[in-house]
Formats: sequence, C-alpha cells, structure tokens
Amino acid sequence: MPAYATNMRMKFPIVALALEIVIIILFAVFVTYDDGKSHGHDPHSNATHHEEPRPMELYPMFQDVHVMIFIGFGFLMTFLKRYGFSSVGFNLLLAAFGLQWGLLTQGLWHLEDGKIKVTIFKIINADFSTATVLISFGAVLGKTSPVQLLIMTVLEISLFSINEHLVAQIFKANDVGASMIIHAFGAYFGLAVARVLYRPGLRNGHDNDGSVYHSDLFAMIGTVFLWMFWPSFNSAIADPGLTQLTAVINTYLSLAACVLSAYAISSLVEHKGKLDMVHIQNATLAGGVAVGTCADMAIGPYGAMLIGFVAGIISTVGFKYLTPILASNLGIQDTCGVHNLHGMPGILGGLAGIVAVALGKKEGGDAAMQAAALASSLGFALVGGAITGFIMKLPFWGQPPDQNCYDDSIYWEVPEEEEEHEESLAHADHSKNKAEV
Amino acid sequence: MPAYATNMRMKFPIVALALEIVIIILFAVFVTYDDGKSHGHDPHSNATHHEEPRPMELYPMFQDVHVMIFIGFGFLMTFLKRYGFSSVGFNLLLAAFGLQWGLLTQGLWHLEDGKIKVTIFKIINADFSTATVLISFGAVLGKTSPVQLLIMTVLEISLFSINEHLVAQIFKANDVGASMIIHAFGAYFGLAVARVLYRPGLRNGHDNDGSVYHSDLFAMIGTVFLWMFWPSFNSAIADPGLTQLTAVINTYLSLAACVLSAYAISSLVEHKGKLDMVHIQNATLAGGVAVGTCADMAIGPYGAMLIGFVAGIISTVGFKYLTPILASNLGIQDTCGVHNLHGMPGILGGLAGIVAVALGKKEGGDAAMQAAALASSLGFALVGGAITGFIMKLPFWGQPPDQNCYDDSIYWEVPEEEEEHEESLAHADHSKNKAEV
Amino acid sequence: MPAYATNMRMKFPIVALALEIVIIILFAVFVTYDDGKSHGHDPHSNATHHEEPRPMELYPMFQDVHVMIFIGFGFLMTFLKRYGFSSVGFNLLLAAFGLQWGLLTQGLWHLEDGKIKVTIFKIINADFSTATVLISFGAVLGKTSPVQLLIMTVLEISLFSINEHLVAQIFKANDVGASMIIHAFGAYFGLAVARVLYRPGLRNGHDNDGSVYHSDLFAMIGTVFLWMFWPSFNSAIADPGLTQLTAVINTYLSLAACVLSAYAISSLVEHKGKLDMVHIQNATLAGGVAVGTCADMAIGPYGAMLIGFVAGIISTVGFKYLTPILASNLGIQDTCGVHNLHGMPGILGGLAGIVAVALGKKEGGDAAMQAAALASSLGFALVGGAITGFIMKLPFWGQPPDQNCYDDSIYWEVPEEEEEHEESLAHADHSKNKAEV
Repeated sequence: MPAYATNMRMKFPIVALALEIVIIILFAVFVTYDDGKSHGHDPHSNATHHEEPRPMELYPMFQDVHVMIFIGFGFLMTFLKRYGFSSVGFNLLLAAFGLQWGLLTQGLWHLEDGKIKVTIFKIINADFSTATVLISFGAVLGKTSPVQLLIMTVLEISLFSINEHLVAQIFKANDVGASMIIHAFGAYFGLAVARVLYRPGLRNGHDNDGSVYHSDLFAMIGTVFLWMFWPSFNSAIADPGLTQLTAVINTYLSLAACVLSAYAISSLVEHKGKLDMVHIQNATLAGGVAVGTCADMAIGPYGAMLIGFVAGIISTVGFKYLTPILASNLGIQDTCGVHNLHGMPGILGGLAGIVAVALGKKEGGDAAMQAAALASSLGFALVGGAITGFIMKLPFWGQPPDQNCYDDSIYWEVPEEEEEHEESLAHADHSKNKAEV
Repeated sequence: MPAYATNMRMKFPIVALALEIVIIILFAVFVTYDDGKSHGHDPHSNATHHEEPRPMELYPMFQDVHVMIFIGFGFLMTFLKRYGFSSVGFNLLLAAFGLQWGLLTQGLWHLEDGKIKVTIFKIINADFSTATVLISFGAVLGKTSPVQLLIMTVLEISLFSINEHLVAQIFKANDVGASMIIHAFGAYFGLAVARVLYRPGLRNGHDNDGSVYHSDLFAMIGTVFLWMFWPSFNSAIADPGLTQLTAVINTYLSLAACVLSAYAISSLVEHKGKLDMVHIQNATLAGGVAVGTCADMAIGPYGAMLIGFVAGIISTVGFKYLTPILASNLGIQDTCGVHNLHGMPGILGGLAGIVAVALGKKEGGDAAMQAAALASSLGFALVGGAITGFIMKLPFWGQPPDQNCYDDSIYWEVPEEEEEHEESLAHADHSKNKAEV
Repeated sequence: MPAYATNMRMKFPIVALALEIVIIILFAVFVTYDDGKSHGHDPHSNATHHEEPRPMELYPMFQDVHVMIFIGFGFLMTFLKRYGFSSVGFNLLLAAFGLQWGLLTQGLWHLEDGKIKVTIFKIINADFSTATVLISFGAVLGKTSPVQLLIMTVLEISLFSINEHLVAQIFKANDVGASMIIHAFGAYFGLAVARVLYRPGLRNGHDNDGSVYHSDLFAMIGTVFLWMFWPSFNSAIADPGLTQLTAVINTYLSLAACVLSAYAISSLVEHKGKLDMVHIQNATLAGGVAVGTCADMAIGPYGAMLIGFVAGIISTVGFKYLTPILASNLGIQDTCGVHNLHGMPGILGGLAGIVAVALGKKEGGDAAMQAAALASSLGFALVGGAITGFIMKLPFWGQPPDQNCYDDSIYWEVPEEEEEHEESLAHADHSKNKAEV
C-alpha cells in the first residue's frame, strides 16, 4: 500500500501539469474569442435575432448545465461512506480538465479562419463532453486512481467528439438531449472499462461499498440539482424559441412522471415496501435521460410523460435485479449503477427517437439515420471503452489494491475521526456546565 | 409496526401508479404545447415585446422558483436527526406529483380551444401550486405516511386552484408574491390537518423530534436557497419591466431587514443570548413571505424593509412563545412551525396589502377585495384542511404509530450505523499505520 | 465564560436592532426605485439596447453572484468541525446587513435628484461590497463575536466604497472582476485585523481548529458554487455584449487551468503525494481571483489560462509554506488562509492588469493608474484594517476567550450529541427486529 500512495507523489503531478501545459500551448495556437461574426453550425448565431446578436443569450442555460456537471454529478457520487472527497474532488478535476480538452476536440471540426472561436454555445458543448467521462467515472468509482481517470478523460472525450461529429454532421441525426451520444455512450464506455478492470477480490463486496445516513443526504444534493436543471440540459442547444420551449416542457414532464414510477417500483420490489435510497437518488433521473433524443420533437406532453414513466420503471428494476447479475455473471462491477441511470434509459431514448422520427414528429428526420446514430454511439462506446480499459490496466498508473478501494484515505489527507469522539465528550461537559448555571 | 410497514408494499405503489396513469390520460386529452399565439391572462404573452415573442424569457425565473421548491423546501425540513430521507425524498415526490396536478387544475380555468397550452408562465404557476402542499407538509412532518401525503396533495392543490381563481379573477385582488393564496393558505391548511391528526402520545415530545449538528447544516442549505431566490418567487409573474424590478427590490430588501430582526430577537429571547438554529433557519425567511402581496406595489424600499423587520420579530417570537401554546392548549402539533414562517407572516402580508392598496400604492387596487382575498384564503384553508384531515385520518392509509414518528426507517431502507463505528476503528488503524511508516 | 455568553444577551440585539433601524431611516430619506430614466455611470442603462431598456437583463447574473455570497462564502467556511452554524449563520447576518449598508455607501457617490435609484446593477454592487467583509471574516473566523463582526462590516464597507470610488472614478482604473478592490482589499484588511487581534494562546493550535469528514464535504458545496459562478462575478458589471462574453470565457478557462495546477501542487508538496482538502477547497478558486482585473481584456484564452495556472501554484504553495510562517513569525493567524486565496492571487491579478494594460490589451487603459489602484487598495486595506482591529479589540464587544474559539456553542444553542448515541443504539435494535421478522 505505501508503494501505491508514494506512486501518486510524482506520477500524478507530472501527468496533470504536463497535460495542462500541452493544453495551454494548443489554446495559444488554436483558440480565440468569438468576434460575433461566426456563422453556420451554431443555430443561435443567425437565428431569430437578426438585428442584434446577443452573445450572452444562452448564458443562464450554460450555468444550469454547469451546475449539473459540477454539483450534480459531483455530489450524486458522494453516497459512499468514505469516498466523498474523491467523488466531488475527482469530479471537479476531471470536468475542469475535460472541458478544456473537449473545447479543442469538438472545436477542431468547426474551425473558422483556422481558429476555434469560443462562444457560450461552445462552452455548453464543452461541458457536455465532460458528462460522458463523469458517467463512466460512476461505473469505476472507488476502483481507479486519478492518473487512470485523467487518461480515461483524454481518450473518452476524443472518441466522443468523433462520434458526435459522425452523428450530428454525417448522419444528421437528432439527439438534442444526447440520450445516445452522451448517456448511452458514457454508460457503455464506462461499463466496458469496468469489465476490463474486473476485480475478483471484490466479488463478495467491500466494507466501504455502502453509504451512511449523511452521505446519502449529500448524494441527494446531487440528485435534486440534476433533476431540476435537466430541462436546461435537454434544451440548451435546441433551436431558439418554441422548439426550445418544447424541449423544456417535455423534459420537465418526463422527469415528473418518472419520479412517481421510480418511487412506486422501489417500494414494490422491496419486501416490506420500503423505499431504497439508491433508487430514489438515481432512477428519478432516468426520465431526463430517456426523453433526451425526443425532447425537441412534437411527441406531445403525454408522450414525454410516458417515456419518463417507463424509464423510471426500467431503471428501478435494473438496480434491483440486473446490476447484481451483471456483477456476478458478466464481471461488470458498476459502482453507481450507471447502466440503470444512463445505459438502458439512454437506449430507450434512442429507440424512442427512432419511433418518433418514423412517426413524423420531427421535420426532416430520418429513422434509419437515428438508428445509425444509436448503433454508432454504442459501438464507439464498447470498443473505445475496452481499449481504454486495457490502457488503464497497465501496471504503472497507481491503481489502488482491493482493500483500499472506496476509501479516500489512499489519495487524500483525511481528518482523524477519533478527535470527534474526544470533542463530543468535551461537548457533553459543556452541556453539564450549562445545566449547572 | 410490521403491519404498518407491510401496508406500504401494495398501497403506496398502487396509489402512486394509479395517480400517474390517470394524470397521463388527462394530459393526453387536455394538454398541448404553447404555439406562441396565446392571449389574455398571461401578462407576458402580449406585453412589452410586441415585435418578437420570447417564449423562454421567464425561464431563469422559473429555474429559481424550481430550486426553491425542490432544494429549498426539501432541505429546510432535513433538520430532524432521523427524518432527512423523508424530508427531501417526500418533498420531491409530492412536488413532482403536485406540479402535474396543478398544471391541470389551474389550467382548466384557462382553456384555449379546449386545451391547456403549456408555457413557462404556466409551469411557474404549477410549481407555485406545489408550495402550498410543501408548507402543509411541514406542519405534519414526521407523522404521516406517503399515501396520506399524496391524498393531501390531490385535495389541497384542487382547493388552491379554486381559491386562486376566485382571488385573481373574481376579486381581482393583488397577491403577486402569494402571501395569502400560498403562504397563509398552505400554513392554515396544514395546521387544520395537524389539528385533526392530533396525537396525544406525542404531547411530551419524542426522542427523534430534534436535530443533530449536521442535520441543522443540511437544513441551512434549504434556508439559504430559499432566502436567495425569494425575489424570483415574488416577481416571477409580475408585469415585466419596472414592475418586476420593483418586486425584486422590495423582496431583496425585506429579506435583508428581516435577517437582522430575526437574529436580534432570537438572541434576546434565549437566556444567555444564544442564537437558536430553528429561528435562523425559518424566521429569516419571514420577510419574503410578508412582503409577497405588496411586492410589486410602490411601497418604497423602506416600506418593504419595515415589513421584513416586523415579520422577523413576529416569526421569532412565534417560535419561542406561540408554538408551545398551540401544541399544549389547542392540540396543534406543528412540526416545522409553519405557523410562524408562513401563517402569521402570510396574514401580515395580506394586511399590508390591504393597507398599501388603501393608500393608493397599486393602481386599480381595491382594499375591500384585498380583504376578501385574505378571508377567502383563510376560509378555504381551514375548512379544506379540516376535511382533508378527516379523510387522511381514515385507518387504512398506513399512518405511522407514535413510536415510529420522525423516523425514516419505517418507510426507507436506512444504512446501519454500526458499520460506521467498525469503519471508524478500521480508520484509526490506518492512522496508526501512517504513523509507523 | 458565562460572562461572555451573557454579554450577547443585550449587546448583540441592541446593536443589531439599532443598526437596522438607522438603515431603514436612511433608506426612507435616500433610496427609491429605478424609474428607468437613469443615465451615466451605469453602462447598462444606455448601452446597446436603445429602443427598449430592459431593467431585468442582469438579473440572472445577479442571482449567480447572490449564490456566491450566501452559499459560496457561507459554506466554504463550514470546514471547521464545530463552527458550521457560525460560518453559514454569521455569513448570512453580515451579508444581509452589509448589502444594505453597501447600497447606501456606494450609492451616495451616484445620487440622482438627491436619491439613490436602485437597479439590478446597484444590487450586484451591493452584494459585491459584502464580499470584502466575508473575505476578512475568513481571516478571523472562530475568534470574533457577532458584535465585533457587525462593527467590522460597517467600517470595512465604508472604506471599500471610498477606495472603489477612487479607483473607478478618479484613477479610472480597470478592475472588472475586482481582484484589487475586493479580493486584495478584503484579504489584507482581514489580515491587518487578525494581526491586531493576535492571540498568543492559540500559538500551538486549538482542538477545534480542524475539520471532520462531513464538515469538509459541506465546505465543498461552497467551493463548487463559487467555482461555477465565478464567471458571473467577473463579468456581471462588464460592458454588455462581446466584452461580457470575453470576461466569462477568460474566467471559465482560468479556473479550469487553476484546478489542474492546484491539484498537482497539492499532491507534490505532501509526502506520499496525497491531496489536501484545504488546498482543493481554496486554491482551485485562485484562478477566478487572479483573472479578475484582466477578465474583460483581450489577453487571449491562453493568457487567462496562464494566469489561472500560476495562481493555482502560488495559492497552494502559500497554504503549505507561507501560512505557518505568517502565524509563527508575524503573529497573523489567518483561519481560512485568505492570504492564499484572495491576498496573493488578488495582487497577482492587479499586476497582471498592469502588464495587460501596458501591452495595450484594454483600450484607453493606463498602466500607471492600474498601479495606483493596486497601491490604493492595499493601503486602504492595511491602514483601515489596523484601525478597525483596534476598535474591535475594545474589551466590551464580547470577544470569545481562547478556549471557546472555533466553537459554535458560545453563540448558538447546539444540539446535544449524546442523544445521537442513544438513538444509534435504538436504531441498532430496529435492525435486530428487522432480522428477526
């Protein structure tokens, strides 16, 4: 164990500093500010507001997405009793690094005068690109070192940018809320990594792979912020005006319906009918994932609600019955159950998109291209994730030994809790004094 | 006790699924997207921006209100030491269900071509309708089953929608920040329910009816988000432009003044002058409640501050002296003290509105109609709450027995805390190892 | 000790009520609503939108800043194990009071018809003025009474308003993100106060001057909200349009680069390469501080990233090596290490501004005036802080004795934790019952 900890000392700082220096050099060469003259792929630049371009118009949407990435994903993963520092801390590290890398890898497809001109639209997309990594992080949570995670970030965002280009520009498929290109992609990428990094030693569980009362409450901060701002996630890059409004309403209603089915099924599948925090923290969000592809289509409010309702059921059932099978039979140890929150609901979203387009709910849509987009996203994820997993498995990235999994103290200075007991005794004395006065 | 817990298994899932399916059917029949052509009751649709309707203009305001409903109310109630899962979890359940129901019951008054056309304005109002339920939930927190709470949600939002229609369309009274129709209504509705559900067995308190250190900090997350976004609550549906600005400024200043008086009085009424977290978590918000009716009136910044200042005093004094009397003399066990945060400040807001309108601070206002609005809100609340209480009291809704009140473990799988002790011992071992190396 | 606690009873309520009453009177005399006709110093009033003034345009930016002030600063300081109530509670008190005082002291420089006309622009600046106090509060956290802190608020915001006027109107220096006039000013003001209030009795530390596991997670709520919304802080009062966009992009990228360098250096300077939560909570934000002055200048995205990268290094190194030296050699006990987060990065920001202006990155800028602004901010801070410190040191403000430092229970009713143990035993019994059923 000391060997592992010592490993961090040089490897992590060198990798982090080197990556950042390379990125700053690339930014110096390739990246500049938007000059208000950009055209083309950004639907907001020459849309309804001809007279007066409003470069900050999407900023409140951006901030909602930003909160989902940094608070939402970060705190959602704090449910583990001794892994909160890593959950919220590595989430910050990976997303802060990933957004820079994503701005480059996405921007290279859209150079203007040889430059990437940064707009609010582009930083929303940069934030989006990090979501794939944060989803995959959930699958391997507690079992990977920060160096491994930085490597995963570089590779996953690169592949994401290629697949996104293929889906949006070549297939011209619709995926406004990214059910396919972010959620399904991120989930299956992470599951492929988790499969390659399979740890037989964790087959029978681990003492730290569970929550305590307050860690579950911290996780609910993440859940609720994700839940609230998901309409922004699904509508941020929609066409402005009524189409964007449709995306907001569909997502708002899908999520609301999903809460009811997730709660109902959670209670139904537990003996005694008790609710399970894992379901509530995750399955209540499946409606946001599943309505993503169709969010800006005229599927009707009830259509959105049906999608959310089904997603809540599938997700909860997945947590209860499928996750244990994946772990024991397929060797896929999915810490956060991303298969249930992002994987299956993401595929459901892709399928719903195929059906909706086939039914003519989106002008100019092509159901075959939607299917190609789903296949491409899953293919890139599984192959890319497997390759990335093998690279991450190389023995010199400081992967933690089994007994130190799910434990912050291998990578963080953790306050010693004995002091709390002393202090609580001291506190008891105070109370006594108070009684005397 | 096992009998109660088992009850959940079938009753809750059936009720939740049935309600959601009925709502989806009603949405299929009645609800459609806004087509940008709506007119009439929505002041934003044909207001200052003639040339170019902006369907997303209110979206940032909506998101602020959304945060208040789901994070604000949800975490405010996590102060109880063993009821955090239920506080934030049932809050999510009731609000997610309530906003769908509210969209229907409010929308039926404003059909266009036989349809409810969803706008941002309407989903703000749907969120508002859930606030009434969340306030009432505070009065009965810890003493009701989720099935009972779902029933309360159906009935309370239905009555709210009738009273709101009466106040806004028939009386044409002003209540932009809803001091009367949400805060006073929700509080007295909840108090009436609490009275009917009176539990003699809790007369002498309950071990779990209190906070621990970190549960009070979780509650402060709720307090501060409510405090910050209250200007959005009070101005979201105000007339655009300077009137909306007035509502923001009045609320911002009322809340600021309220903090000072709440802190001062909290210190003044405790022996030794210590501050009480219950006061700080709640009474600091009374200024937002009390300035609601007048928020968009020209009462002057100092007028708003005076209202907030008085509200902070009344609310703190209410927590200290009135709540115990209500419990012991009137049989009203008000878990969160909603009478002090929403009840009295709501009435104060209604009275301030009568005075302000009488003094000509609102063009076209009528003091008598303001008074009618306050009376109507209180009447609907007390009668509706009492009836709802009797329905909730029927013996087959799984109400928890006294000894299981304020305890998540009757409805939730709760992590076993013994593990934490084992783990903390293990952790102490780590520290030792560290010292040796 | 009882003497101190008793002191609170009358002194604090009287001071708080008197201050609020005076302020309400001043507001009655001086403050009115914006009437949409204001001109002059507010760049938003007559800027790009001639046809149609939009009084609410900056409101989403305001709310982001509001969240930084109340959640960001408030929770950042909850890292101490027994000082969370005071951190988030006094933060609310000081900011709620300070924004009223700041609206007056800033507004007196810009009277129109003898009145301060409140706009969103002005309440953003009022929130900004409180940031100086909250930074200084970090330096003296755990060692001062609420009465002392209210006095500090009055004096510090008054001096801030004079220095801000000097910098902005007389020197006409650029400081859009306030590296100099808020961050450096607030930090050195607080350090001067801390120096005057030096406590030899705390030379060897204090049992309560440390964190526990969950208090560090609460602090991360503050960190992440500050990190996410910092682009709004640095751009809220920038010229609208592309200049504001530049301020957003520079801050977004500076912060992202800063995260990588802060993590890398934190790992590098600890033996075994572990990350230190203190560094992650604070140094990841230094990029936002340091890019403040240049945020709206054409320094290039890579220029912003370089500033953030350097700030992350300086800040982390400061926490590790400089803070202990300041405490032991200079008698400056800086509880939160504001010197590392706001002090040095603020100076770095001021210096970067001088260089950027000298290089012509800001039209009409004057490097000498930038230098004068930095000198003025530091001068006002050090002299003003020292004088304020001596006033705060007067023996009748209820300053806590050494042994009660960093302890909520001197000013707050704190729940007794023994109950938690009893309750946890009771809970264990539940679990047993469950096993039997």
